[in-house]
Amino acid sequence: MEPGPLLRYRCAAFGRVTMKLKDVIQLRVRYSETDQMGTFYNSRALEWFECGRTELMRSRLGMSYAALEEKSVFLPLVEAHLEFQGGARYDDLLRITSIVELHGRAKLRFDVEIAHSGTGKPVVRGYTVHAFTDAQGKPIRPPEWFVEMLEHFHK
Amino acid sequence: MEPGPLLRYRCAAFGRVTMKLKDVIQLRVRYSETDQMGTFYNSRALEWFECGRTELMRSRLGMSYAALEEKSVFLPLVEAHLEFQGGARYDDLLRITSIVELHGRAKLRFDVEIAHSGTGKPVVRGYTVHAFTDAQGKPIRPPEWFVEMLEHFHK
Amino acid sequence: MEPGPLLRYRCAAFGRVTMKLKDVIQLRVRYSETDQMGTFYNSRALEWFECGRTELMRSRLGMSYAALEEKSVFLPLVEAHLEFQGGARYDDLLRITSIVELHGRAKLRFDVEIAHSGTGKPVVRGYTVHAFTDAQGKPIRPPEWFVEMLEHFHK
Amino acid sequence: MEPGPLLRYRCAAFGRVTMKLKDVIQLRVRYSETDQMGTFYNSRALEWFECGRTELMRSRLGMSYAALEEKSVFLPLVEAHLEFQGGARYDDLLRITSIVELHGRAKLRFDVEIAHSGTGKPVVRGYTVHAFTDAQGKPIRPPEWFVEMLEHFHK
Repeated sequence: MEPGPLLRYRCAAFGRVTMKLKDVIQLRVRYSETDQMGTFYNSRALEWFECGRTELMRSRLGMSYAALEEKSVFLPLVEAHLEFQGGARYDDLLRITSIVELHGRAKLRFDVEIAHSGTGKPVVRGYTVHAFTDAQGKPIRPPEWFVEMLEHFHK
Repeated sequence: MEPGPLLRYRCAAFGRVTMKLKDVIQLRVRYSETDQMGTFYNSRALEWFECGRTELMRSRLGMSYAALEEKSVFLPLVEAHLEFQGGARYDDLLRITSIVELHGRAKLRFDVEIAHSGTGKPVVRGYTVHAFTDAQGKPIRPPEWFVEMLEHFHK
Repeated sequence: MEPGPLLRYRCAAFGRVTMKLKDVIQLRVRYSETDQMGTFYNSRALEWFECGRTELMRSRLGMSYAALEEKSVFLPLVEAHLEFQGGARYDDLLRITSIVELHGRAKLRFDVEIAHSGTGKPVVRGYTVHAFTDAQGKPIRPPEWFVEMLEHFHK
Repeated sequence: MEPGPLLRYRCAAFGRVTMKLKDVIQLRVRYSETDQMGTFYNSRALEWFECGRTELMRSRLGMSYAALEEKSVFLPLVEAHLEFQGGARYDDLLRITSIVELHGRAKLRFDVEIAHSGTGKPVVRGYTVHAFTDAQGKPIRPPEWFVEMLEHFHK
């Protein structure tokens, strides 16, 4: 028998529950994102990761990140890791797969994989870790309603 | 006999006085600013124009733009024009020449020329026009102390 | 009686024919495109203009710009003009309307209007002018098949 | 007695030699690099890392990266890690410290620390790992002259 959502969350500390929400978007490489090597410039990957986070929150968490900031909850990036696996040229259609989960008690982690939409050929994979802060940048606990929202939408 | 600064300013409407301040900086093309055509991507020119404005204000107006914003005076861009005259590759050293003047009674205009530092070969020329606003984006008159500062540093 | 496409093009010099193709896309403001004023940074508008051009060419001209470059036809920007009419914040949904036409005998011009998708409130308007060059950047005449393509898709 | 350069290099496998070259540059935060949170947007850190690499190679390795690419040696990024330690606002003066070393037999690694120039307050630290490839992106061994150059300039 599957435990209810609240129980599942309480078990998290025992490593038995992975609170993961997943979302997939598509995105085309802009000319402005290429560099003279003919592929995308490396820092664009972090901007694409942001597009993935934005759409995951809107479509899967039931609240856009813009709405979250209006409630004075900010998610500044504190850590990022990137592995560049293959090139992508101007106008290539990419598929960005993002997964979100709580990271410890007070952080959020997004795992991201970017691949060519048609062939599935990998482009970049990595993750970003985010703190919860107020508008002044002071660390805060993840709001309870946010954690519940994560739980509620968890399959 | 040269008219005093205040008189000169009052004459501006008659087209007899050009309140211009000029500054020159150098800047290297970053790899992140190139595109797959092998030259810089067009929008970078507006970012380089900003570098020119920033340093002109710091070195010639006696007040950085950062300090101006702290006094709740903002200079949002309202118009820009760009002519692309020649390419510039990664690591090329460019020379940015910026001239500032009042534009009508309530705007500021920067004329900018970007050329290769060594050869003088032209890269981009253009201008930007800026409104004066408060922190909320409401248009304001150019503060009197700002106009006087422009006059004071005018040679 | 309406003249046929070839005739119409030959009349262009007399100003009787405006070869215009129009396309509309939607685009969300990325967090990476904002600045500390809370609106988008000015140079992003040129990157959005590029998105408009890219999709107009794909959907209306029957050949993507990527395919055009593969045929060794490049369209580097030679002139741009921008009027900033209003702000746009992170996650705002924008509508980009692009119109393309031949500009003289050897250039292409795109007129662009960016507005808020919901309210229609204007954000930026402007244009870009593009030369036709080969892969080495040498100016070329617009290929005949390109001009015919423009005509063919013209309503 | 210090071993000669070749010997030192051969000892590298035994972990007794760290072939490290260090360089420090200064850089101002551009307005275009800020975001609506009021600090720099996260992806800019990777662009600043690039500035650090570029100047380290020019001033310490005796060959600019541009010159290296002309010799058909490319250093695409294959991995990056970033820890965001503190904010940096528009016009803040930053100090970028970069250290380069061979990473295994066929990669190059740059360790970077970015801090406020005046106070030394940390902003970002991280590293990038680069492959050696030819102009077509095919992996190559680090050219012997490059390894020797690294050794030669090693103090």
